Amino acid sequence: MQHSSDFCVSPLDLRQAAQARRDDLLHPHGYREGTAGYLMTSEYSCLDAGLTASQAIDMLRREAADAETIYQSYVLDEQRNLRGTLSLRELILAAPEQPIEQIMVHKVICVCTATRQEEVARLIRQHDLLAVPVLDEGGRLVGLVTCDDALDVVVDEATEDFHKGASITNHVGNLRDATVSLLYRKRVLWLVLLVFGNLFSGAGIAAFEETIAAHIVLVFFLPLLVDSGGNAGAQSATLMVRGLATGEVVMRDWLRMLGRECGVALALGATMAVAVASLGALRGGVDVAIIVASSMLVIVLLGSLIGMSLPFMFTKLKLDPATASGPLVTSIADAAGVLVYFGIASYVLGI
Amino acid sequence: MQHSSDFCVSPLDLRQAAQARRDDLLHPHGYREGTAGYLMTSEYSCLDAGLTASQAIDMLRREAADAETIYQSYVLDEQRNLRGTLSLRELILAAPEQPIEQIMVHKVICVCTATRQEEVARLIRQHDLLAVPVLDEGGRLVGLVTCDDALDVVVDEATEDFHKGASITNHVGNLRDATVSLLYRKRVLWLVLLVFGNLFSGAGIAAFEETIAAHIVLVFFLPLLVDSGGNAGAQSATLMVRGLATGEVVMRDWLRMLGRECGVALALGATMAVAVASLGALRGGVDVAIIVASSMLVIVLLGSLIGMSLPFMFTKLKLDPATASGPLVTSIADAAGVLVYFGIASYVLGI
Repeated sequence: MQHSSDFCVSPLDLRQAAQARRDDLLHPHGYREGTAGYLMTSEYSCLDAGLTASQAIDMLRREAADAETIYQSYVLDEQRNLRGTLSLRELILAAPEQPIEQIMVHKVICVCTATRQEEVARLIRQHDLLAVPVLDEGGRLVGLVTCDDALDVVVDEATEDFHKGASITNHVGNLRDATVSLLYRKRVLWLVLLVFGNLFSGAGIAAFEETIAAHIVLVFFLPLLVDSGGNAGAQSATLMVRGLATGEVVMRDWLRMLGRECGVALALGATMAVAVASLGALRGGVDVAIIVASSMLVIVLLGSLIGMSLPFMFTKLKLDPATASGPLVTSIADAAGVLVYFGIASYVLGI
Repeated sequence: MQHSSDFCVSPLDLRQAAQARRDDLLHPHGYREGTAGYLMTSEYSCLDAGLTASQAIDMLRREAADAETIYQSYVLDEQRNLRGTLSLRELILAAPEQPIEQIMVHKVICVCTATRQEEVARLIRQHDLLAVPVLDEGGRLVGLVTCDDALDVVVDEATEDFHKGASITNHVGNLRDATVSLLYRKRVLWLVLLVFGNLFSGAGIAAFEETIAAHIVLVFFLPLLVDSGGNAGAQSATLMVRGLATGEVVMRDWLRMLGRECGVALALGATMAVAVASLGALRGGVDVAIIVASSMLVIVLLGSLIGMSLPFMFTKLKLDPATASGPLVTSIADAAGVLVYFGIASYVLGI
């Protein structure tokens, strides 16, 4: 291979670079977990811009043992800046004597070492890439993330979000092999925190003890009304959490989403108000029907707005929005529901 | 290409086969959505066993325009049964004159057209495959599913499970573009169903109206106790739903999981009983402390066992276990919690 110039690294250089970068991970200034830098492999194949297609194939043949993939190669300049990319398919299809400079794609989709792994996976998925190159702050190629890495990221992220949505802390690992003690530790914190969260609902009820004592029938509708707010809130929160995770929704969509959510929640609340009004009339007369129906409308609206806003708020505060779905939203919506219900009841019944 | 025999299809045949199979999808006997048959592309590259490595590369070069991927090729016999597979990497590394029969891998990981798409994605992920071949009932190769298809499947399935976990019906599509009317329709059914589910909690409360009227302080602890059962249940259900979705847990693990769940739930229940006992003593004396603490233990245990069992039950009934996480579990656990709480209260207070 006469055309190989000094800036094109040999497999030996690649191995040394890979080792150096592996040591880096243990270094205090290494790449953070959850970033492209942490996920990437340094065993990429790179080519010299001066090669022809058949020379490039020859070179890949020699690199094949050391590279993670030879199906996508990168062309670098003297500063290791990325000049272009080409696939083995393009190389195979090209005339053997054609210079790879003419074949390569100049506009390369790439990420930097600090890019979050979900974003890397999203790019790979969106553009059907086999691999995405990773650049350092100086724009130099330092590694690549492949489609099968993206697959692992997506599954792990989905599992973690799923667990957070039910207030389970961090990774449980393989569920089948998890011990009683591990599961206890992952679950207990949030359960106890939510108990204290529910104290607000309890305090709300205590504040209206007189109203309840005078109209014990109101208690019958308590779980129904309060849970409906929590359920509607959980739906809204889940839609938003997943939308933010897949990148369908971004922060600046919040206001538009809020407007739409009001519309959806009013329609849902009205439907459910009708569903419970007859039940209220049946058990407690017209007064109770009015209380129950209007409470339902307000509670579903309030629960939905809380549910859709929390994931945005968590994102803004740099917390994981997934924590905001499920029990946390439900607890907050519950407490709001108690106040709304007994507040309306006290007003209508004139207590 | 002198060695190509009649059982090795040409690009033209491939195109026709692909068209035929695309028409198939519209046919009543076509492949069901969610299966490998529905997901696969028929544009795979196949090779004649009699070729040498360099002849195989020449052949792939000609097929490249029509094949989904030329990085993994399949060797078929006269009946189109799969005899082996080989990657372009192996072909490039092989001596040009080496027969591909000597290079190819004979034991191929493959799926059949009816294999569920989650299972296909799991195999691709587990074995870091670029693609997995799909066989029909007769063991003939009919298509392949690639890693980027698997990525889409995994993201879509996770989103769908996530939504079902919050009782949202089926696909919402891109959240950003969803209309008010679409969101209403996806959310209203479950919300209304859950209202009727909550009637059981209401009925439970009504059955104990006397107890409540005599000891109005009990109502203060109602949301706290009942929600704790629901929260513990949602955690268990979520862990199981995700475990079943990723294949970490299978049906026959149920009994072992049940035993472990009892241990975890008892530990969680005991912790939370301690947390609320002092609160009970503070607000209502020793009697209330005993009622609240023992109710908490039983409610958390019951909620957890319901939560972990429902996803298995749904799987057994061929329903999607994801439906069993979130609000459905919470509603059932809530109703059970009301009965346990007021049952214990009536017994201790001697009403």
